[in-house]
Amino acid sequence: MITLHGKNIIGNTLSSKSNNTFKGYGMATESLANSQFYEATAAEINSAVYVADIAFAHYKKTSGNQKAAFLKSIAAEIELLDTMLIETASNESGLPIARITGERGRTTGQLRLFAKMLEEGSWVNAIIDTAIPDRQPIPRADIRQMQLPLGPVVVFGASNFPLAFSVAGGDTVAALAAGCPVIFKAHPAHPATCELVAGAIIKAAENTGMPNGVFSLLHGNSHNVGQALTVHPLVKAVAFTGSRKGGKALFDAAVQRTQPIPVYAEMSSINPVVFLPEILEKNATKLAQDFATSVVMGAGQFCTNPGIFFILKNKDTDNFIATLTAAIAAKPVQPMLTKEIANAYCHGVTQLRSSNGANGLVQFDENIATPHLLQITASEFMSNPLFSEEVFGPSTIAIVANNMDELMQCCERMEGQLTATIHGTATELFTVAPLIDILQVKAGRLVVNGFPTGVEVCDAMVHGGPYPATTAVRTTSVGTQAIYRFTRPVCFQDFPDALLPDELKQANPAGITRKVNGTIECINR
Amino acid sequence: MITLHGKNIIGNTLSSKSNNTFKGYGMATESLANSQFYEATAAEINSAVYVADIAFAHYKKTSGNQKAAFLKSIAAEIELLDTMLIETASNESGLPIARITGERGRTTGQLRLFAKMLEEGSWVNAIIDTAIPDRQPIPRADIRQMQLPLGPVVVFGASNFPLAFSVAGGDTVAALAAGCPVIFKAHPAHPATCELVAGAIIKAAENTGMPNGVFSLLHGNSHNVGQALTVHPLVKAVAFTGSRKGGKALFDAAVQRTQPIPVYAEMSSINPVVFLPEILEKNATKLAQDFATSVVMGAGQFCTNPGIFFILKNKDTDNFIATLTAAIAAKPVQPMLTKEIANAYCHGVTQLRSSNGANGLVQFDENIATPHLLQITASEFMSNPLFSEEVFGPSTIAIVANNMDELMQCCERMEGQLTATIHGTATELFTVAPLIDILQVKAGRLVVNGFPTGVEVCDAMVHGGPYPATTAVRTTSVGTQAIYRFTRPVCFQDFPDALLPDELKQANPAGITRKVNGTIECINR
Repeated sequence: MITLHGKNIIGNTLSSKSNNTFKGYGMATESLANSQFYEATAAEINSAVYVADIAFAHYKKTSGNQKAAFLKSIAAEIELLDTMLIETASNESGLPIARITGERGRTTGQLRLFAKMLEEGSWVNAIIDTAIPDRQPIPRADIRQMQLPLGPVVVFGASNFPLAFSVAGGDTVAALAAGCPVIFKAHPAHPATCELVAGAIIKAAENTGMPNGVFSLLHGNSHNVGQALTVHPLVKAVAFTGSRKGGKALFDAAVQRTQPIPVYAEMSSINPVVFLPEILEKNATKLAQDFATSVVMGAGQFCTNPGIFFILKNKDTDNFIATLTAAIAAKPVQPMLTKEIANAYCHGVTQLRSSNGANGLVQFDENIATPHLLQITASEFMSNPLFSEEVFGPSTIAIVANNMDELMQCCERMEGQLTATIHGTATELFTVAPLIDILQVKAGRLVVNGFPTGVEVCDAMVHGGPYPATTAVRTTSVGTQAIYRFTRPVCFQDFPDALLPDELKQANPAGITRKVNGTIECINR
Repeated sequence: MITLHGKNIIGNTLSSKSNNTFKGYGMATESLANSQFYEATAAEINSAVYVADIAFAHYKKTSGNQKAAFLKSIAAEIELLDTMLIETASNESGLPIARITGERGRTTGQLRLFAKMLEEGSWVNAIIDTAIPDRQPIPRADIRQMQLPLGPVVVFGASNFPLAFSVAGGDTVAALAAGCPVIFKAHPAHPATCELVAGAIIKAAENTGMPNGVFSLLHGNSHNVGQALTVHPLVKAVAFTGSRKGGKALFDAAVQRTQPIPVYAEMSSINPVVFLPEILEKNATKLAQDFATSVVMGAGQFCTNPGIFFILKNKDTDNFIATLTAAIAAKPVQPMLTKEIANAYCHGVTQLRSSNGANGLVQFDENIATPHLLQITASEFMSNPLFSEEVFGPSTIAIVANNMDELMQCCERMEGQLTATIHGTATELFTVAPLIDILQVKAGRLVVNGFPTGVEVCDAMVHGGPYPATTAVRTTSVGTQAIYRFTRPVCFQDFPDALLPDELKQANPAGITRKVNGTIECINR
């Protein structure tokens, strides 16, 4: 039985100062259907940031092992929430139990992956150039660099991953691992899930002796809470996953501050897929089936959903499109995350269908979020920017090009993407180097003979890309490299050894791989 | 004998389309005194960016060894310019021959340091997670990440380093090493020096077979050229060293683009120095002499010039300030870089002297850029933001605090800094951990018992810091880590080995240190 308080969680204190409450999305149980959440007031926002700033003074000095214990305790506390969490998240998001269960595994898995990185320790990128007292004409000082945390960070929950990109999701984990306290803006589409997971984090912080304020959760159904957090002078970075409009608004607010701060907004991507002719000739049926599955997976509500694909006009084109049309038409309608998202999807598809030259291949009711497929020509794609805009949901567009040159022209005109995918036989892949070159400039991840959906959480992952895929092309929001969004390099010149952080002390008490006088001194444990 | 053409250098073509020319600063020889430079037109700006974009397609595939050969050839060509370059740069900047000669050594040294890094090769940060086909519930794909160049980059010359932070300076070298073509906006205070060094780069590009357009030089005496370059859609990043106003204008232009791009502006820092009481008691005379030297070095025209220092009020205060006053008063007036900079300095010092509570300790003529020292109290520092603004030139402010708490309050209120310095005895340094904590949050480089001027070009250097020291707190503009301002991570999923960049191929033909399945595989050559 779930009991919800609906309050803001400011460090270890519950707070409900506002008269302004909003209803949650969950309807399955009485407690969910009656749940009310308190929109954070200006005073509560301020409190959460101040307590985070005070916590930072302690948390930034917390050792890697202590932070790792905290992250692992969060994972364990999430698992203790058991079916209550799974059912609440499923109920609020409309996503099936199996999907939410898998997502919980991803969430706890990434907490433990970051914990492992912290325990190993060399992520701090320690670089040491020792003194050369007798260098001419002037001596060289002793200089030692490492990554240190930025300060309090604001993280926004994403609607489409109520666990893995929400309260204890990728951005939160990366910021906490870096040594930054997190003020989390709960997503109003799954506030009960947010409350449960935030409780797990607070409990883990208590279990492992983390300072009060290392984590806070604020509710808000309007944009005000997020805007106020973003412009708060003590906030040092913002992480966001969501719409282009939302991310752009936060980015604009952050760059106009007296002290501009980085906003890591992962916003908009249509994830082009190219099917080369030889593989289509050989394998059309299976490719059509697998592609349809990728398009409709999770009701198409993935950042990496393939919103467009390119094929060449030839004898196999019609057959592939017909097979794909049948496959997509056979997919069931799934509930979308919110009514607003479903409406936006229906509106988006309707707009596409009524565009010049657009050939809607699947029956579409303007009121039901049906999986959808549209066909256009390459020249139509290039002449109408609407076809390049993300429609969030289970739809894709077939773009038929007359030849490879035209296909590459389309790719050259695309905006930045999270992913770009090519399907081809072993031989034909080697004939399309110029196409790969174009896609490499456009996207953060290039996929061969796979599908973009399914983002592995690992060291090598890049979930990022040129604008508007993200507002920060040099970063990733998935995988261990995501930690560097929340750190900055600091160097220490001629410091007494005992005053240096352990990672930089001469004897290397942290036992980590470091670069010393140009040579990497490798330590694998 | 120096012969100048005064034209824009667009790849390997000279261009002088404008009727709008401006005079150079050099007056020592007839050719310098008569030199005229052509302000780049909109068409020339466009040409330079287009040729850079075309060059990028080739240059991004240039191997590390080839890029290293290019950088080393630039260094050699600069050395071949010999006394002509030294004399021209000295004449245009007013900086002495010895300083310019040293600066040339720094310039060629950093070219060769980056070349060495490229030859070694592991800077690309190769991370490999190999496939796990039998993983449950779904297989893991093969994912491989490395850093790749951003695209054409615009670099602005700094007036205060006509060689080391100008045409072939730190920003240019970092961008070229990353694989990015550079469009260089020449500084109008040393256009002849710019022309000479640009010629050396073009020659080196020809020597080593680099594509036409890998480097261009554009002149401009107004802000228009820089603004137009910053908003050009094909430009992917901007590097700038200069005033807060100038850097902010470029930052604002860049973030308002349809596709925002990063601006790495190194702008404004007053580089606080703290003298702790015990060391002042023991070593006042030498510290005063050395500090005075740091303040007036290069007419105070360094980003890291110590513009303020803190001391506690006690029996030694007056003696230290008197010694420092005498030392600064004894320093000769040196020519400043430009008449505008000298005027701004005189105006800035005059404004400070007339502020409430300010005690000007050195005679000051409002028309001569005399080295200067001012004394204020900590409470005056905290109540008047003028004392926290950079006055570019040979002046510093003594801030006398009643006690350590007041001193730390001052530090807490400071904006972001490039450097922060503490002088103390071995014992007293260990008593000021809270002060070090505050300074660490404020600055990119912390110095003990040294002076902030003199920025070592090495792997461990951080020349950066929170805003307004820079617009990009996660970066450095000096040292080899500066390369990452111009790269982004890209990952390749399930690519055929032969289609991967050498750095990511299974057999590691590049022979570089990589992280493979969580283990660093170290290769030192």
